[in-house]
Amino acid sequence: MKCKVCKGPAVIRLRSHNLALCESCFLDFFYRQVSRTIKRYRLFDKGDKILVGVSGGKDSLALLDALITMGYNAVGVFIDLEMGYHSVESKEKVEKIAKERGYPVIIRSISDYLGVSLPVAAQEVKRPVCSLCGMIKRYILNRIAMDEGFSVLATGHNLDDECARLLGNILDWRVDFLARQDPLLDEEEGLVRKVKPLARTSERELTAYCIIRGIDYVQGRCPYANKPTSYFYKGIMFQIERKMPGTKLRFYQGFVEFKREYLTACSNTEKQELTRCERCGYPTLSNVCNFCRVKERIEQRRDE
Amino acid sequence: MKCKVCKGPAVIRLRSHNLALCESCFLDFFYRQVSRTIKRYRLFDKGDKILVGVSGGKDSLALLDALITMGYNAVGVFIDLEMGYHSVESKEKVEKIAKERGYPVIIRSISDYLGVSLPVAAQEVKRPVCSLCGMIKRYILNRIAMDEGFSVLATGHNLDDECARLLGNILDWRVDFLARQDPLLDEEEGLVRKVKPLARTSERELTAYCIIRGIDYVQGRCPYANKPTSYFYKGIMFQIERKMPGTKLRFYQGFVEFKREYLTACSNTEKQELTRCERCGYPTLSNVCNFCRVKERIEQRRDE
Repeated sequence: MKCKVCKGPAVIRLRSHNLALCESCFLDFFYRQVSRTIKRYRLFDKGDKILVGVSGGKDSLALLDALITMGYNAVGVFIDLEMGYHSVESKEKVEKIAKERGYPVIIRSISDYLGVSLPVAAQEVKRPVCSLCGMIKRYILNRIAMDEGFSVLATGHNLDDECARLLGNILDWRVDFLARQDPLLDEEEGLVRKVKPLARTSERELTAYCIIRGIDYVQGRCPYANKPTSYFYKGIMFQIERKMPGTKLRFYQGFVEFKREYLTACSNTEKQELTRCERCGYPTLSNVCNFCRVKERIEQRRDE
Repeated sequence: MKCKVCKGPAVIRLRSHNLALCESCFLDFFYRQVSRTIKRYRLFDKGDKILVGVSGGKDSLALLDALITMGYNAVGVFIDLEMGYHSVESKEKVEKIAKERGYPVIIRSISDYLGVSLPVAAQEVKRPVCSLCGMIKRYILNRIAMDEGFSVLATGHNLDDECARLLGNILDWRVDFLARQDPLLDEEEGLVRKVKPLARTSERELTAYCIIRGIDYVQGRCPYANKPTSYFYKGIMFQIERKMPGTKLRFYQGFVEFKREYLTACSNTEKQELTRCERCGYPTLSNVCNFCRVKERIEQRRDE
């Protein structure tokens, strides 16, 4: 198998792009794909100060590494959720890449904000860990971005994540969810701009990128992870992609275009009016935001 | 397994509806589902004169049988495509149900309209049989409906057909195709109203209906049928339905609602202006319709 570009020995075959590439040409291809995603969806430019949420996994570490390599002004941020060994290992991987490559990374702990670890918080408010995790991470990441003057918050969601989510939303025609599924969520009062620069890059390409770039990442899943539906949808998309290479990319790109033309433009669903949380100032639909309600509940329980 | 309605012995389990039913209660359920489809999408009413396209297969024969049993004014129409044994067998099944149950059925042959059989026509115009078949059947069925004063043309497309087509259209976001996928295509100048009363009824329910009602149908596929993609999509939908019963119905119903709200209402795609074919008067985008062009070509070849 020869590299389609330089005719040297290829290391990876990308059926979706009808390409075989050597290491060096694969990296060029990878950066070009990310760059196209950034430009096509107008995510940010070289003048932006980008905060990259890193978990220690392959997607987010690859994103931080790629953005810095491509010359963007990017800083990683790791939130230690204090979930035992998994969190320790994840933090080590983040600290390792920061130290070895001199990447700027902000490290914070959930207790700095909530007073307790994520599993304890979940126990105190009697909710599953997964149901709290997303909300709390979104809150803390947004707060760090706003407080420290970042213009953009980037996350490592990849093409497979987005396709699985899209398929699930479409099978049930969840119009509100579809309307919010976008590689770019613009800044609003109190909310930083959120972007997904890897939305057109597959999981397989990300694994190859990490191997070639020597990025050491956490391989184990979160001990609380329990997402049978999204794994099921990824399996379905895998079968479709194997039969018709390129479908995932067409499905996602086609959706974003369709969504912007029909859903966002024609949506009858009125935008809900956000006010500010009376405790912390975070945008919310009620008087007190979800984060502050969880925090208050935990403090009450501690005082009992 | 007991019938959920009458507690007698059940013969079929419908996981998508969380039901087990005996023969008699299944028939009630089947008619109720078809009736709901007709009413929900306002396909037709008891005052309409309905032409039902029958192929000799289970879906269309079940449709004719159900509509007549439900008290609709329905007449079957069979177009003999003259494709050898498959056509002979199909015609026999149609004639059998017509004779045994006293159902009115119009029988016509493709040569009455085109002068030759479908395989010969395909050969003459150097096109695959499947690429001609749909266009020719649509033309002849519409002409019979218009000439003989029918207000509606009904076809046997079932839930599985519609879901497979929908999935294919969505993976590629073929907006024009999506905009035309509807259980109801209203009448226009020169075109009869077209409806799909089985769009919410699964293939499995149709097989059960034919068995219970003693309907003898053609089991073999058309010898020219070559639809690997639609079979592949049916397999994908089967896996999703098995994992999450009821998804096919939600997917299809949700689409029709979504489509009518967002696609039809907001579509930027301008409707193409139809004129009348200068030979036969059929609505067309050019001077001569596709059917007349094929016919002309065949006549020229015969004269050579």
